[in-house]
Amino acid sequence: MPPPLMVQFRGGESGPWRIERILPVIGESLPPAARLAMLEGAATPAGAARWTLRASTGNMRYTERREADSLVARQAGLSRPEARRAALIPIRKSEAWWALAQDERRAILEEQSRHIAIGMEYLPAIARRLHHGRELGEPFDFLTWFEFAPEHEAAFEEMLLRLRASAEWGFVEREVDVRLIREG
Amino acid sequence: MPPPLMVQFRGGESGPWRIERILPVIGESLPPAARLAMLEGAATPAGAARWTLRASTGNMRYTERREADSLVARQAGLSRPEARRAALIPIRKSEAWWALAQDERRAILEEQSRHIAIGMEYLPAIARRLHHGRELGEPFDFLTWFEFAPEHEAAFEEMLLRLRASAEWGFVEREVDVRLIREG
Repeated sequence: MPPPLMVQFRGGESGPWRIERILPVIGESLPPAARLAMLEGAATPAGAARWTLRASTGNMRYTERREADSLVARQAGLSRPEARRAALIPIRKSEAWWALAQDERRAILEEQSRHIAIGMEYLPAIARRLHHGRELGEPFDFLTWFEFAPEHEAAFEEMLLRLRASAEWGFVEREVDVRLIREG
Repeated sequence: MPPPLMVQFRGGESGPWRIERILPVIGESLPPAARLAMLEGAATPAGAARWTLRASTGNMRYTERREADSLVARQAGLSRPEARRAALIPIRKSEAWWALAQDERRAILEEQSRHIAIGMEYLPAIARRLHHGRELGEPFDFLTWFEFAPEHEAAFEEMLLRLRASAEWGFVEREVDVRLIREG
């Protein structure tokens, strides 16, 4: 497990990803922008941005050992040449979620909502990296970055529909869905 | 549960807390300083600091509902007039700890080490606030701040000895113990 990596997602005029659309799923959207750049660690931004979202990778919060082993055995990394589609999905959960104890959040996330199990069904086609922003004072608690080949876009949509229909999503108070096409 | 609060602990020449001693428990110490100021949120620091440690409060990572209810029923808040002693204990855990899955960390922290249960025995005398720094890129994963009246200092020492003898502490690779006396 690598140490936490701070990541900036900058929507603006530059970056290898063309923004295809920005869809507000729950609550307020993000301002329109043409391109997106993902900067890792101390990388210095080039040019101005319409918006910048920051968050950090980190340790597993809910995943148990047997699940972690299955994930490691199946998941693919970022930047595969064939993965020319991406989605950035910023999410904020409600105060009611954050007031729950660890066992209550785990029970909703997995025993009720099958969040980990559903994601696992779409590996290795859909690669994923989760970033935490809540304790940085950011507007979103999570920024999840997905990468996949164009032929897996329908599977990706299906996965999102299943997650959004879950009990866990009753605690989501803001969600934006940013779709991207690799052009750089 | 309040939203996360960013907190800076500044060791230097100013602040209401006089630094009585700085003891390196495991690994490298912190540079000497005369006084300590704890700044919350956007508070602006006054004067120079020898060192600044930053971290954020956040949601419970391991505490289950029955434990959370017991804590809430028993714990005291910060800034009680009689609590004129304090300790700041910065800790960094090993990569081996962070590579563990959630259920493995919980089992070591509570089922083996009784971390939550031990802390509970010393409530309400020892007030406590935990701050997370790992995902901010800080040198310490946790900054725990304790406040207590002078007559509870022996109990506080006992609590630390019990925690430091636990299986969980085998994963601590740096720990500093900063003791403070309120003078402002």
